[in-house]
Formats: sequence, C-alpha cells, structure tokens
Amino acid sequence: MEISELQELMRATYLERDERRGVEATFRWLVEEVGEVARALRHEDPGRREHELGDVLAWLASLANLAGVDLEQAAARYADGCPKCGEMPCACPFTP
Amino acid sequence: MEISELQELMRATYLERDERRGVEATFRWLVEEVGEVARALRHEDPGRREHELGDVLAWLASLANLAGVDLEQAAARYADGCPKCGEMPCACPFTP
Repeated sequence: MEISELQELMRATYLERDERRGVEATFRWLVEEVGEVARALRHEDPGRREHELGDVLAWLASLANLAGVDLEQAAARYADGCPKCGEMPCACPFTP
Repeated sequence: MEISELQELMRATYLERDERRGVEATFRWLVEEVGEVARALRHEDPGRREHELGDVLAWLASLANLAGVDLEQAAARYADGCPKCGEMPCACPFTP
C-alpha cells in the first residue's frame, strides 16, 4: 500500500470525526497509542506489536490530515539515504 | 512510495545503528520526535510540520524493524474501513 493510500483511507474512514475531535485531542490519541506500543514491547506477542504499531501509523495519518501534511511527501526526505549525511547506510557520527 | 519501501529504506539506511542503539533507546527517540510534532503544531509552518511528522514516521519504521513488525501488514488492518465497526466512514459511537 502506498503511504498516500493509507492517508487517503484514513481520510475516508475518519476525517469527519477527526475534525470534530480536533488537532489537540487527535494528538492526545496518538500519544496514547505510542503508550500502547511501549506496553506491547514488554511482551513477545508479534500480533500485538503489529496491532499497536499499526495504530500509531493510523493516528499519525489522521493527525497529518488535520495538520495539512502529505505523509508521502514527508517520507520522501528519506528516499535517498540519511537526510543529514546523504549516505545509505547512514554515516553520521553515532548518537545513541 | 509503498509503506514496505519506506521500511526497507530505513533498514538499508539505519538498521546497523538502530541495532546498536537497541529497542529502548529507539523508542525514546520516537517519543522525542513525537514531542517535536507537538511543538510544530504550535506554529503555522507547513514545512516544519511535514518535517516532524516525517521524522515520526521514519522512527516508527526503525522501531518496527527492531520489533520484527511489518508496517505494511500492520496498515492492512485499515484497508477495508474502520477495523472496529467495519464501515467507511467509521460508524462507531463517537469518542473524543
């Protein structure tokens, strides 16, 4: 699936309620889902990890719809290797 | 760009350092980037919003690589409308 297709799916499925909820509460939901990823990482359950990472991706697309951001274009920054050093693999000085 | 292509790009660009950093510190970076989205939402700067949402997407793909999750498959849950009610647009009772 294209990144733009996911964002379009989220628009078709959730835009009306995303707009009703607004940017602030949508951001809060995104953070809540990030918390669920934190919890899923404690468990060796591949299905649960997939579920929670997918939810973060979905809420990120919802937030992008409200914030006027094209996620496809946002991802393009990574298409030619590391945006900082321009290399693939990245050759920046390592920062943990 | 396909979601799987972005994840593959992140693997080619960052997997070695992602593995060296580990899941915990990669999750911390993801949260730091979510914080940068929070800040970008305070400003009417479309480029900055795109940049920060793109960084969250990228770190999410890095984390997925470490957690053994296929983001493409994770996103597929949303392909046929809301995973809860099965409708597009979503017809679940509204929750802010």
